[in-house]
Amino acid sequence: MSLQNIRVVLVNTSHPGNIGGAARAMKNMGLSRLVLVDPVEFPSSEAVARASGATDILDAVRVVGTLEEALVGCSVVLGTSARDRRIPWPLLDPRESGATCIRQAEQGGEVALVFGREYAGLTNEELQRCHFHVHIPSDPQFSSLNLAAAVQVLAYEVRMAWLAAHDQPSKQEKLETTSLLNAQPVTADELEHYYGHLEQTLIDIGFLDPAKPRHLMPRLRRLYGRSAISKLEMNILRGILTETQKAVRGEPHKRRQD
Amino acid sequence: MSLQNIRVVLVNTSHPGNIGGAARAMKNMGLSRLVLVDPVEFPSSEAVARASGATDILDAVRVVGTLEEALVGCSVVLGTSARDRRIPWPLLDPRESGATCIRQAEQGGEVALVFGREYAGLTNEELQRCHFHVHIPSDPQFSSLNLAAAVQVLAYEVRMAWLAAHDQPSKQEKLETTSLLNAQPVTADELEHYYGHLEQTLIDIGFLDPAKPRHLMPRLRRLYGRSAISKLEMNILRGILTETQKAVRGEPHKRRQD
Repeated sequence: MSLQNIRVVLVNTSHPGNIGGAARAMKNMGLSRLVLVDPVEFPSSEAVARASGATDILDAVRVVGTLEEALVGCSVVLGTSARDRRIPWPLLDPRESGATCIRQAEQGGEVALVFGREYAGLTNEELQRCHFHVHIPSDPQFSSLNLAAAVQVLAYEVRMAWLAAHDQPSKQEKLETTSLLNAQPVTADELEHYYGHLEQTLIDIGFLDPAKPRHLMPRLRRLYGRSAISKLEMNILRGILTETQKAVRGEPHKRRQD
Repeated sequence: MSLQNIRVVLVNTSHPGNIGGAARAMKNMGLSRLVLVDPVEFPSSEAVARASGATDILDAVRVVGTLEEALVGCSVVLGTSARDRRIPWPLLDPRESGATCIRQAEQGGEVALVFGREYAGLTNEELQRCHFHVHIPSDPQFSSLNLAAAVQVLAYEVRMAWLAAHDQPSKQEKLETTSLLNAQPVTADELEHYYGHLEQTLIDIGFLDPAKPRHLMPRLRRLYGRSAISKLEMNILRGILTETQKAVRGEPHKRRQD
């Protein structure tokens, strides 16, 4: 499980609530290893409150004095950064970062995602210890994300990359949903029978004049044709038409059974 | 600037800090329109503190009593959802959601991203008002994100889609999509009126038993909700219902003019 090879490193965090929020965001995305470099306040009840159940991550936190210690054993280090830096550095967006993390971790490498101080970010010296810089593409007019929110975005992209690599949970479930949804898609000939039935019903209720059909049927074909109708849905639509025809002829109602 | 067509709707939020955190996340990603449905506490100094400078968004918040009011004018509604639902619904991941939002907004449509209560999410009835459900692919063992963190992830994907749309202005592709999907999409409230009309008509023809509605309306909502119905098509569908009702009552036919 390559997610275990990825550590989140928070440098010199001021607000313990952000440490808790970061822990929750990590656990939501399947990450577990949190390292704090010289935190201003930790342990803290505020961190526990904001972690909202991710206390196992707080309990296992490693607290160190320097970034260097936090990075021991890492083969790839990514550091979050504001956009403009004097020294140009390989710059990734969060999506590329997620892919980079998983690529390394899958090969057995240790990866660190490093986040700076709430107001000042990472120093230039700290940034130079990173192999890649990561910029979250925020609005230049209001660019500074909350620390836990930044952890959330990068952890989310790590999970998306991990799911893609394993072709797992999310996709499998989606397939299930899709297959439930379209369990059995209707066939072209069934759709044609529906259009025939629909046309006749529209004539029966007086909505369609066969002598002047205009664009009515093509428009309805375009609508239903793009809707990927399932067999179940088709049964409902056909049932509605049948009951409409009966009702127009004044036949007694027959309630639908399903 | 299509981001202005996208509103974030928070339903029945308990903690004002989350409202502030959501406002900050939105502003970071270039979103500005926040609607609160029946918030437990607002305005609030805690919201202002967590907004951390995004006070213009809090000042412009629209507070309404019902989800229906919050969705007036929307052509696409996406609702965040836990994974398991009895009736499967079109399900998007955050990336697909971002693309869907921007595709609609670029065509001039209004889009809503709806987030439920901190502990209970959205009710089934609220989820049925959404055209798409969005699931953030969290760890099934610890799946519930902080509300502001969930807003952050979806707002981030909206911004990524917006940047992609504007970095690669493949105008031809955009035009094609527009003409395919029709210039004037129907809004959420128009769709709700349609569902009301449809339900009544199904009762009139004896297809729907109000005492035993089963899953009929949710299934029809799912079908029409995913079909991106245009105003023109809506006029046709409403016309069919009106003529069906007249025919059942034995009123004289009136041929459609178009």
